[in-house]
Amino acid sequence: MLGRLNHVAIAVPDLEAASVIYRDTLGANLTQPQALPEHGVTVVFIDVGYTKIELLEPLGADSPIAAFLAKNPSGGMHHVCYEVPDIHAARDRLKKQGARILGDGEPKIGAHGKPVIFLHPKDFGGTLIELEQE
Amino acid sequence: MLGRLNHVAIAVPDLEAASVIYRDTLGANLTQPQALPEHGVTVVFIDVGYTKIELLEPLGADSPIAAFLAKNPSGGMHHVCYEVPDIHAARDRLKKQGARILGDGEPKIGAHGKPVIFLHPKDFGGTLIELEQE
Repeated sequence: MLGRLNHVAIAVPDLEAASVIYRDTLGANLTQPQALPEHGVTVVFIDVGYTKIELLEPLGADSPIAAFLAKNPSGGMHHVCYEVPDIHAARDRLKKQGARILGDGEPKIGAHGKPVIFLHPKDFGGTLIELEQE
Repeated sequence: MLGRLNHVAIAVPDLEAASVIYRDTLGANLTQPQALPEHGVTVVFIDVGYTKIELLEPLGADSPIAAFLAKNPSGGMHHVCYEVPDIHAARDRLKKQGARILGDGEPKIGAHGKPVIFLHPKDFGGTLIELEQE
């Protein structure tokens, strides 16, 4: 079922400061910041091949990454995103196997304009997994 | 300087149990477990495109991931590994910029038989970064 690894997301308290580190210290190419109000984050993608690094900064009062940054004030790896050929088939298969889908279980539109779901980290060895329709 | 994202490493307390989740629940292809005594870990790679997921289980009494698992008993994302064209040039550039290299600062041979270094997470927004010679 799992397709390609699409991106790895890193939560940061300060997107501008983190961008300086990746651009100047590590010499990487970055996209312009993109606000995703429905997801409560502002994102920058780092070009390191097909699989991207996604820097996430909280946006708005109810950002879903606020609690993570409260626990990890200097930031840290937040989730990994895999592609799947059919997001609804993947969701149904996982539910049948007892895995928990976050939220109401319905796919939402993600950063690339494609439907995504998030899986409960407790069912996957402590790792928050995002699945994105190919 | 940063080349392609080579892998993302996930520390797990039980490699067999984690392999079952990735193989059976998520439907991914896995390699056979490989013991890396010099690194204090046993690893399994998951095939999700060019960038791999690496599951890491402690090996031996002084495993470098033991402290991480004591803090995160169910496991979690441990590090990301980028390729660089010249590991010594990358090391020298980073040291000049004030970044800290873990250990004695000399590259060691990693899981793919190529020299690697690890960068201090405090200098990189809470993320442990491995650099591997291309």
